[in-house]
Amino acid sequence: MTGFKVTPWEVSGKVDYEKLIKEFGTKPLTNELIEKLVKKAGKDHLLLRRKLFFSHRDFDNILKWNESGKEFALYTGRGPSGTTHLGHLVPWIFTKYLQDAFDCELYFQLTDDEKFLYNKDLTLEETHKFAYENMLDIIAVGFNPKKTFIFSNLDYAKTLYKTAIKIAKKTTFSTVKAVFGFKNETNTGMIFFPAMQAVPCFLPSILKGKEIPTLIPAAIDQDPYWRGIAREVAGKLNYPKPAQIHCMFLPGLGEGGKMSASQPNTAIFTTDDEKTVKKKVGSAFTGGKPTVEEQRKKGGNPDVCSVYKYYYYLFEDDDKKLMERFEACKSGKLLCGECKAQLAERVNKFLKKHQAEREKAKKNIDKFILKD
Amino acid sequence: MTGFKVTPWEVSGKVDYEKLIKEFGTKPLTNELIEKLVKKAGKDHLLLRRKLFFSHRDFDNILKWNESGKEFALYTGRGPSGTTHLGHLVPWIFTKYLQDAFDCELYFQLTDDEKFLYNKDLTLEETHKFAYENMLDIIAVGFNPKKTFIFSNLDYAKTLYKTAIKIAKKTTFSTVKAVFGFKNETNTGMIFFPAMQAVPCFLPSILKGKEIPTLIPAAIDQDPYWRGIAREVAGKLNYPKPAQIHCMFLPGLGEGGKMSASQPNTAIFTTDDEKTVKKKVGSAFTGGKPTVEEQRKKGGNPDVCSVYKYYYYLFEDDDKKLMERFEACKSGKLLCGECKAQLAERVNKFLKKHQAEREKAKKNIDKFILKD
Repeated sequence: MTGFKVTPWEVSGKVDYEKLIKEFGTKPLTNELIEKLVKKAGKDHLLLRRKLFFSHRDFDNILKWNESGKEFALYTGRGPSGTTHLGHLVPWIFTKYLQDAFDCELYFQLTDDEKFLYNKDLTLEETHKFAYENMLDIIAVGFNPKKTFIFSNLDYAKTLYKTAIKIAKKTTFSTVKAVFGFKNETNTGMIFFPAMQAVPCFLPSILKGKEIPTLIPAAIDQDPYWRGIAREVAGKLNYPKPAQIHCMFLPGLGEGGKMSASQPNTAIFTTDDEKTVKKKVGSAFTGGKPTVEEQRKKGGNPDVCSVYKYYYYLFEDDDKKLMERFEACKSGKLLCGECKAQLAERVNKFLKKHQAEREKAKKNIDKFILKD
Repeated sequence: MTGFKVTPWEVSGKVDYEKLIKEFGTKPLTNELIEKLVKKAGKDHLLLRRKLFFSHRDFDNILKWNESGKEFALYTGRGPSGTTHLGHLVPWIFTKYLQDAFDCELYFQLTDDEKFLYNKDLTLEETHKFAYENMLDIIAVGFNPKKTFIFSNLDYAKTLYKTAIKIAKKTTFSTVKAVFGFKNETNTGMIFFPAMQAVPCFLPSILKGKEIPTLIPAAIDQDPYWRGIAREVAGKLNYPKPAQIHCMFLPGLGEGGKMSASQPNTAIFTTDDEKTVKKKVGSAFTGGKPTVEEQRKKGGNPDVCSVYKYYYYLFEDDDKKLMERFEACKSGKLLCGECKAQLAERVNKFLKKHQAEREKAKKNIDKFILKD
């Protein structure tokens, strides 16, 4: 498969991220910018070092703004169409790193309206319920309760709608048609929705009554919202253009493709128990050979292995140890079964902590929810 | 001018109401239906007798539903793009007659979102302010405070948005294009708005958790919302189809055309003082002759006279006296100056009472406002 498609609602094919940077008109996240960020944070981050975060728009300007002592805010979101998996956590974990680095506010939007409007089989009651389930996972990541404001579009609609219609007044059907590929058959809720998604870009400025730009850490598929809508209308409404820092998609445990709730066997959900994780990791696609003998002799291929990708992006922070694992695989010393068992253990260790935090979140949720 | 245009945002030309009934597919309000209503109300109404209310959709079904002892609710609204004039009051006065007749609930929507989205020169702050100014006029009409629920779309957005997106999910761009003539250049707020306007059709059923159909008294230009959107999706969402009872437009004081705030010299605003009313009525277009001598000799023409229309529709309830005035004009006995002075007096008497009620409404407004 050579072609690929990346829209806010569909990611298919093998994504060529370099091509995407050109197509979307973003900039690669340079080592210089990474160094500046790491210096500010006082520590580096796996997702930066391993370049899962790879692209940006105006992140350099946000750094300059911050250097001059001025406030900015983070904004990210989640489309609550199901339970949370590790792929969702990736940008959130990185968002926490950013919040800690800059000690800044975070606005977290749950688009229960969008997921209802887009999925013909989901009811509003379902997406709204998922929003609250997902909030527990968000809170479990460890955001600062004093500076984190989480809201469901449905529950925060009174505030959002006011600014959404200001954005919508400046946005024609021609524009959303060009940006999102909407058609005459698209429902009018979806046509309006990009305005709702753009609101939090300006929300810190609105709530505080002064210019507070936003930085949006998110997977690159969400970029059309900021490029095509929020950045376009920002000037017309006298708000600063939102900046973005983009990540790639966390792969699933299958042969290619991003981790997706629609393929539950190759996705690890935050609520999976130990046994389920062992089973899913045990069935993961690897670069192993058909027989133990052959693998001992010829070695495995970590470059195509989904298990190796999990060490790479999330579960082996130590570069030296990662390289040793890579070599052990290539040489045939490390077999897939053992490597999988070790990963399952690390995933379960991670999930045990996450699940404990998630339980605590049930009691603390009110501290985080933004109300009209 | 033979052509005419009637849309929710534009009414121009000399409206042919019979043609409109055919075009919109409504039914004429028959004498049989009028008699049933008058019987129920225990009294007749000028606006019925003089047929300013002239058309309906399913009003017969509402009467049957009511006869079987079941509850229905009234729903009407106002687009707050300016101060209230007599033309606006007409459907409200009739709505009060209906509320009194059936002792039923009334939901009153102020579409401050729509007026902002449609008028490029109006800010949201302005339409929102007009909404509250207009509410005072609504309350001044004398609705039952225990059964009347007034809301601004902006302030009630949290509740409205939930149902609006259910309606929008069932409404495509093709549909709103066909119903309202929207184009690719239409802004996405206007495209979504018909869903917001349709919500109150179903609101009584939603708030009470049982089937409560709505009857909408409104000028006929609003019909596309109910015909093209609300009635279309009602079945899909398991709500009863809203019924309508339509009025014509109250003419202005000029030569033809409806009373319109955009022509302030031929519109009587509820806040006009005595002097202003005298001046406006004094300058009204009549069927008089160029000189007193000529009029004494040939008589005036009440059929084209805007002043006569005001007696007809609002300020002369007595059919016999109306006929006497008609004849006195035709015969040249009654001159325009005297006739105008009498009308100005009646208008001022009406406004004096209205303005007093409007002042009282400032204290009572909270009793009427529907909150999330």
